[in-house]
Amino acid sequence: MAEFPQGSVGLVQPQTQHFDTPLLLANGRVLPEYQIVYETYGQLNTDKSNAVLICHALSGDHHAAGFYDGEEAQPGWWNNYIGPGKAINTDDFFVISINNLGGCNGSTGPLTVNKETGKPWGANFPTLRVRDWVESQRHLADLLGIECWAAIVGGSLGGMQAMRWAIEYPERVGHCIAIASALKLTAQNIAFNETARQAIMADPEFFGGNYNERGTIPRHGLAVARMIGHITYLSGDGMGEKFGRELRSGSFSLGCNDPLEFEIESYLRYQGAKFSTQFDANTYILMTRALDYFDLAREYQDNAVDAFSRATCKFLVISFTTDWRFSPKRSKEIVQALLHAKKSVSYAEIESSYGHDAFLVPNMRYNAVFSSFMKNITVDIERCNSSLQGEH
Amino acid sequence: MAEFPQGSVGLVQPQTQHFDTPLLLANGRVLPEYQIVYETYGQLNTDKSNAVLICHALSGDHHAAGFYDGEEAQPGWWNNYIGPGKAINTDDFFVISINNLGGCNGSTGPLTVNKETGKPWGANFPTLRVRDWVESQRHLADLLGIECWAAIVGGSLGGMQAMRWAIEYPERVGHCIAIASALKLTAQNIAFNETARQAIMADPEFFGGNYNERGTIPRHGLAVARMIGHITYLSGDGMGEKFGRELRSGSFSLGCNDPLEFEIESYLRYQGAKFSTQFDANTYILMTRALDYFDLAREYQDNAVDAFSRATCKFLVISFTTDWRFSPKRSKEIVQALLHAKKSVSYAEIESSYGHDAFLVPNMRYNAVFSSFMKNITVDIERCNSSLQGEH
Repeated sequence: MAEFPQGSVGLVQPQTQHFDTPLLLANGRVLPEYQIVYETYGQLNTDKSNAVLICHALSGDHHAAGFYDGEEAQPGWWNNYIGPGKAINTDDFFVISINNLGGCNGSTGPLTVNKETGKPWGANFPTLRVRDWVESQRHLADLLGIECWAAIVGGSLGGMQAMRWAIEYPERVGHCIAIASALKLTAQNIAFNETARQAIMADPEFFGGNYNERGTIPRHGLAVARMIGHITYLSGDGMGEKFGRELRSGSFSLGCNDPLEFEIESYLRYQGAKFSTQFDANTYILMTRALDYFDLAREYQDNAVDAFSRATCKFLVISFTTDWRFSPKRSKEIVQALLHAKKSVSYAEIESSYGHDAFLVPNMRYNAVFSSFMKNITVDIERCNSSLQGEH
Repeated sequence: MAEFPQGSVGLVQPQTQHFDTPLLLANGRVLPEYQIVYETYGQLNTDKSNAVLICHALSGDHHAAGFYDGEEAQPGWWNNYIGPGKAINTDDFFVISINNLGGCNGSTGPLTVNKETGKPWGANFPTLRVRDWVESQRHLADLLGIECWAAIVGGSLGGMQAMRWAIEYPERVGHCIAIASALKLTAQNIAFNETARQAIMADPEFFGGNYNERGTIPRHGLAVARMIGHITYLSGDGMGEKFGRELRSGSFSLGCNDPLEFEIESYLRYQGAKFSTQFDANTYILMTRALDYFDLAREYQDNAVDAFSRATCKFLVISFTTDWRFSPKRSKEIVQALLHAKKSVSYAEIESSYGHDAFLVPNMRYNAVFSSFMKNITVDIERCNSSLQGEH
């Protein structure tokens, strides 16, 4: 067996849970059956009070920590913060990380065969909202016997799921951690998402989303979509520090038809091309739409204070100085609403040059704030548990 | 004859100038012949000392002011600032606005037939740098007998041309006005341009840039490129104020396959589609490359102070608070270099919510600063003129 770095959860394996009970979606449609792929790290304690749910962002999946057999080089996407002795300490917590419904890594989504038609769902997969993910996650919790999550944690779109949980099922959430997130997207955020979707839809290999039937993949469109995303996940300064205006050859190759002059061009093309072979276009569209639709207070007369007044958990909100896709201003709106709703909230704005991506990257101060909040939860677990026992 | 709004130069007509003398380009290639389309507003005075050159930005052209016959509704792109009594007062100045070489509105560019092959240049049109535009503009000035421009004025990419003029031909520039411009692009700027280019090149109708021969147009790619541009020309706050998260139908249409929910989506799609029928894809690629390549100090050992030390004109630099594509920080770099080079420079950072587009939009303070600087030039014209007479 391979040796894994210290602080790693080591070798992990995804599990699959099938659900036969139909799922009523927010848009009124019904998924007759579905499956959820997930991973777990750490041990569930006897009273099942130490479970932590990880909610992933736009292009994430269930593989948040540890390594797959034969893939030692590339750990899960949040391996920096999940593991023994790490912020989400797997010595203390039982961590569950799932691939969201509509995803393309094993959970039911556009790539899945629709039993009614015998063909992949493709573009006909129902449009989802964040609340649909909360519902499917809740059914998994029921099945595993987890009545109250010690914490629900997520960055970006993941933070939106954590907040939605906190107000829709207050009795089932001990702590909510929303990192680099927002109460809703801005017009500019939506504009970037829409441009990415248009790039995908304009690809002639897209075939209105039914590319699976045709045996094609809208690679080019997906690559451009990823390039747009990438620019907005990094900070302008960070990009400048990393790539500057460095020329690949040291000088201009002005005569050439399609010159690739700057390092940043080369980096973006590589990232775009890589992503286009790994991710499903319909899922990308579905996930960006869920982001656009999310509006925490929409069903609460656009009043975030009213929305949060239902919550009973403790909150941690974290933002990063150079994140311009989900800026500190957006996190402060969350904090303000929570304070007005008289909720317990800690807030940290972390210095980082990594833009929106900062939530994934090692950072001492971020780690300290995150770890200390999680450490305190081990104390609170008892309380959540005893309050539940009081109710029953 | 139609009636035109007050302060308008009225009906205008483009002129075409053909050049038989080959033009040696910065990349070593030679254009054997070329033509330049331009418009003029106002009257050239007898000593030809009141000429103002307007340099256009990425998607601009020679039609900067006034109206074409039958198109009264849509004046030139800088009609707000060029006309009788306006900032660039056509009662005082003789204004020349040209379509840059490589453009798609009449000047020689990718759409032009290459006489050597009998086919449109297409993707084989030479890559251009800002200095090539300065050269072709200089030849036009020679032909018109303009030895010293009273002022060279431009926003964005146009400001780069004005600055290049000021250091390459100091004796021929009385005043240089660089609005919402920069000494060079940032990595993020280049990244956006590259993503736009990739969107165009990924369009199967692009055919490696030789779409003219095939009778196609890469409409979809060009539309996505324009959408990316549009987002970066507007400010996030401005976009929020204008579109917010307004839903087109008042509520979500979650069931539909390709919903168009938000007003901002609808606006972007419209802008993209419109542009894709009006602008040439090869020109768009060429212009964004010229932007990427521009680096005022590159040939001056990366020292902008040294570069500017050659200049003899007076400078006006203007930036806009919410412009994040060419932020005030970039303009301040220009001003700092000019101050260190001991040049005469005025600087104004104008409050505006319009982002990079602010340089096109009516704004009282911007207009006041711009007008007052231009007014002072009428005084300086005498001096430029007399210093020239001293040299000869």
